[in-house]
Order: sequence, then C-alpha cells, then structure tokens
Amino acid sequence: MPFQIAIGPNIRKSPFFDATVADGVASFSVYNHMFIPAHFGDPEGEYDRLIHGVAMWDVAVQRQVQLKGSDAGELAQYLTARDIRDTQPGQGKYVPLCDHDGRLINDPVLLKHAVDKYWLSIADSDIALWASAIAAERGFDVQVSEPDVSPLAVQGPKAADVVADIFGDWVHDLEYFCFREAELDGIPLLVARSGWSKQGGYELYLRDASRGTDLWNHVKTAGLPYDIGPGAPNDVERIESGLLSYGTDADKHANPLELGLGKFVDLECEDDFVGKAALREVVAEGIKRRRVGLFLSGGRISQNVHPCPVCLDGNIVGTMSECVYSPRLKKNIALALIEADISDDQKGLAVETGDDPRKANISALPFC
Amino acid sequence: MPFQIAIGPNIRKSPFFDATVADGVASFSVYNHMFIPAHFGDPEGEYDRLIHGVAMWDVAVQRQVQLKGSDAGELAQYLTARDIRDTQPGQGKYVPLCDHDGRLINDPVLLKHAVDKYWLSIADSDIALWASAIAAERGFDVQVSEPDVSPLAVQGPKAADVVADIFGDWVHDLEYFCFREAELDGIPLLVARSGWSKQGGYELYLRDASRGTDLWNHVKTAGLPYDIGPGAPNDVERIESGLLSYGTDADKHANPLELGLGKFVDLECEDDFVGKAALREVVAEGIKRRRVGLFLSGGRISQNVHPCPVCLDGNIVGTMSECVYSPRLKKNIALALIEADISDDQKGLAVETGDDPRKANISALPFC
Repeated sequence: MPFQIAIGPNIRKSPFFDATVADGVASFSVYNHMFIPAHFGDPEGEYDRLIHGVAMWDVAVQRQVQLKGSDAGELAQYLTARDIRDTQPGQGKYVPLCDHDGRLINDPVLLKHAVDKYWLSIADSDIALWASAIAAERGFDVQVSEPDVSPLAVQGPKAADVVADIFGDWVHDLEYFCFREAELDGIPLLVARSGWSKQGGYELYLRDASRGTDLWNHVKTAGLPYDIGPGAPNDVERIESGLLSYGTDADKHANPLELGLGKFVDLECEDDFVGKAALREVVAEGIKRRRVGLFLSGGRISQNVHPCPVCLDGNIVGTMSECVYSPRLKKNIALALIEADISDDQKGLAVETGDDPRKANISALPFC
Repeated sequence: MPFQIAIGPNIRKSPFFDATVADGVASFSVYNHMFIPAHFGDPEGEYDRLIHGVAMWDVAVQRQVQLKGSDAGELAQYLTARDIRDTQPGQGKYVPLCDHDGRLINDPVLLKHAVDKYWLSIADSDIALWASAIAAERGFDVQVSEPDVSPLAVQGPKAADVVADIFGDWVHDLEYFCFREAELDGIPLLVARSGWSKQGGYELYLRDASRGTDLWNHVKTAGLPYDIGPGAPNDVERIESGLLSYGTDADKHANPLELGLGKFVDLECEDDFVGKAALREVVAEGIKRRRVGLFLSGGRISQNVHPCPVCLDGNIVGTMSECVYSPRLKKNIALALIEADISDDQKGLAVETGDDPRKANISALPFC
C-alpha cells in the first residue's frame, strides 16, 4: 500500500534534500520534525551496498542539541545515565537519557567539544525542550540551542577508504565515536567515526546548511571508484546488528536496563542524574522485561507488520517492535521486549502478526 | 514531485488509520510521531466540503498531555501564558506555551476536567517531556502522562447537524471549546465544540483506541445525508482564516506577541508562568516582528514553496511561512512574519519564491 507523503511547510527539509531528490529518493520518513530519505527505489541493492561496499545517507535529522556555558558539563551529566566525567574534548559517547521515572526518552551520542560546550546528537524526541526546561528550572548557566549542524553518514566496509580519500589517512586513526574539525572546499564540518550501523563508517557533520548539495556531491564524487550510492539508515542491518531504534523498540514505559543498555547506565556515578533514583528502584525490585531477538517461522515476512503481541499459551508476554527478512541469515528476524523470566530456550512462543501468526524462537543479539 | 512515505514502526498509527486507508487516503504527513492523513486524492473537493458541507478528519495526532494530581492546576497555570484561573470543569481554552525565553513552544487547547485533572491537546512538539521535566524539577504532585485519547474532527457548516443527529440537540448548546463526556454504542468519548478551522464543528475525543474504526464508521453513516467525506486539516482554509500553525508559522525564536497571540498572553496574571519575565522584557523593548497576511501577484502559486524570504529593496525583512491559492478570493495568499515597523500600506514588498518571485501586499487577517 504505497502512500504519498505531503511535503508540507511544518516539516523541515534537510540541507541535503535537493541533492537526495536529484539522486532519485523514492520514499521519505519524518524524524525530529524533518524529512529523511527512507529509500531510493532499490532497498535490496541499498542493503547490499551497506554490507559489502559503501553507502551515503542524509541523516540531518540527527539534530544537535548544544549545551554551552559554564555549567554545560554539570547539565550534560545530570541529563545522562552514563558517567561521562572522564570524557575528553574530541570524544563522543553513546548515552541513554531518562526521565525522572527512569524511562528512556532518547539515546543520543554525546560529543564533548570543550569543558563548556557539548552536543547531543539526538534520536527522535524534543530533547532541546527537555534540556532547556531542566537547565532553566535548576538555574544552570547554560544556553541550550540547536546549531546549524546536519550529519551526512558514510557507512559500510569501504567507507573509511572514501573518507580517507577526501580528508587524508588520519581518519583511519580516529577512534570510534571520536571526532575532529575539518574543512572541505570551504565547507566547515566535523569528521566523526560513528554511524547507525555495525558496518563501520563516518559521519560528516555539515556546519553550514547552505553547503548541503556541495558536500553531498563531494562525497558522491570521491565514492565513485568504490561504487558509492545513496541509501538510508537500514532497518534490516540494524535488526541483524541488534541496534536499538529509540522510537521503535522503546515503548513509553521502557527503561534502559530492560532495553539492554545496562552497560551504559552508571548507578554508582558520584553525580546525580535524572532517573537515577528510579533506576535504583528498578534494580531493587528486579528488572521486569528484557530485549531479545526472535527468529520467526514461515515464508518471507512483510516489513509492514508492527508492533505485534508476543504470546505464550495464549497470554501476551511481550511486544515485537519490528521484523524483517534477513538476506544474510535467510530467515525472518525480529526484535522484542518480553517478560524477563522467559528463558532463551522457551518453546511455544508466537508472534500475533495479524492474519499471519508466526512461531518464534529467541536468539541472542546481535544476530550477525 | 510525489514521493512515497515509509510506513515504518517508529511512527505510530492512529486508531483511525485502517478506516482512513479503507476510505482511500492518498497522502500522509507525520505529526507528534504519528501518521496523519494529508488528503484523500481530491484536495479541491475536500476544501469545498469543509467550506460548504461537512468533513471528517483523523486528528488523533492532537495527542493529550494529561496533568493529574493535587498540583495539576498549579502546573497548568505555570506552563501557560494565559490566565486560566477562572476556567471551569468542562471548559477548554486556547493557550500559548512558552519556554523560559518567552518563545512559543506549542499552542494547545487546555481542557479542564476537574481541579486535579487537565489535558493539553497539543500541536507538534513533545510537551509531555516538557511538562514532566518542569513538574519533577519543581517537586509538584502531578503525574504527566499520555492517555488513550484520539480526536476525530467533524468540521464545516453542516457539522453541527451531523453531530446532533448522533448525540442529540444538546450539542447545539455547547459553547465554543466546551466539552462533555458521552458514549456511543459503548464507545467512550468526549464531545467538544472545537476544531482547527473557522467553519465550525466538533471534535470527538475517542477514549478507547480499539474502537477507532467503529467511531469513524458511525460518523460516516450519520453524515451520509449531509454528503460527509473524509479530509484533513486544510492549509487553504487555515490561511484564509489566519489560523496559526505552530510548526509552520512560528520559527524557533518566535514569541506569542509577535505571532499575534497577545490576547492570549496575560502578563498581569498574579501567578507566575514560564516565559513571563522574558515576555515582559519583549514588551519593554518593543515587539520586533508581526504576523501578517500577504497577497502575492501573478498566476496560481504552487503550494510547495516554503519558507521564503520577504524582501524590501533587496533587504530581507521577514519570512513567508506558507502560501496557497484561495478559491474563495481567487488570489494567491500567504502568511508571513515581518519587521514590526513595516506598515500595512508598504509598497515594494516581494517574496523570493525561488525561480518565481512575487510582488506582495499586506492584508489584514483573517483574509475571509
């Protein structure tokens, strides 16, 4: 059932919008009040390129929330469930953000520029509102803003070659999540080793929205010898890799501990953070759910089935957030949040995908 | 340039989604992380029905942020730039919400259920996060949540007849923005006299997501004698009527005073509210911009041109947020935020709509 998308004025266009249209974008989604390409008409080819070659993605929707001022570090830590006190300038960290009840409200990458300047490169919720409410109510000396910054991702096993051809071999030495300022033909940007896939790659944080098409075309040209092509954050690869999609996998009650993000939550952190007391209670009472992979029986599954109840003996014991057919595994795979006491070898699980129910077996994550 | 929309799992489906698909929705947008129909394939017919007949719209995206607890009233007032202290249970009010810098962050309808229970029926930003941050940081005894509530709008000059045929003649006596609990074939709902048009109408706040198709079909059947049809919040009518679209007309720096919402801002309110001090400074320094209508010269304009600079003698003096062709006026009309000292009879204004610049003349709002 293909529907059109309304290109209305209430949703912002990315600085790469025109370039993606010129390169044949076929489908959009919306994220952080901005259009994001969903695919360019060849989803399977785009997946292959990510796994075996190199793809470029307009991920300007990863908006930056800038914390600037003498209390920026204190605010950053207070917003963040992970102990970030030893983070160095030029370093990034994946950080769960929780509300006061310990529920996950975003899972950005925190980029530390300086002791008085941080960015949160956010998933799909209005963290600028959240951060500014807390900063103002606590009287912090911090300005919260959304700077003119729009990431372009280069992902896949050949991504490092493309980015090194553009910027030099130093990019090979960047550690994961680290970043450095750079310039390309007068375009100001950051080069970060990061991206929402497990295939390796970089994100080029464009710092001048008027140069979006220029940056896109630079990367496209540099990638020609590597058969680069346009794509988008890839649901199939992210499920194979077990990556969390905040807006998909985390219902509004989910906490980071049940979502499998425990290693990014530091309940012993000396500083307080939003949700710390609530998460300590969660631990004391026992974590009620856990995030698992599922193999689903039967023929190739439609990707439009979501979310669905996970059942055991007719009782709902969880929710499947998304399912896909994995070309690498040649199986239907899915992600789910299920009751924590269901063991990995549980028999009799089923996913109620409407007219097409499937048997389910639990898999460890990542799938591959 | 028609593009598809990705029906992905990170964006929620409305309880009316299946019904709108069955009734031929052709185009969607996204609002509050949820799909909303944009049109059903006949935008001009849908406009005509709104102006002369009756239309039904899936506006489940108007999510409710519920404030419940002994401090709910105190929080509601603190979040709101309008004095709401005399609001009665069963009454609604249009209320600007500001951040601590006095910038508009949403313009919901506040529904007062009881002294300890309010809903904010929100525009497109995450006010549940905003409200819960402020409630928690101030130590208010309030629970902030998103209840299972999804409005269905019935709009147009014949809307009252349709809604009265369903619920009885008492709906004619409901004052604007007032609401009452009701039930229809076991479906729990509120009937409110409200809606995002100036053509009159009602919103039925569905309180059980599992009954979306049932409610849709009830309204459709009741509307048959009045030639009801499906539609969506209508950009042409809202510009003719001068209605504010928060995500479209308010850039991230805009305050409610320059947006023309001054009559809903009570700077003399005895209670404090977020942004009050900042807005007093705005008044003291003089309001810098104002919201106006524009007539644009030339042939029928494309609706896809937005936002565009408004220029005077080659200098940018404002931003046009959206333009349409008005069938009632047989003219191109637009909304803009311009410098406050530009007078209504200013000559020489132009809107730089890319390849197709237009001369502009200021109009009072509403246009019609």
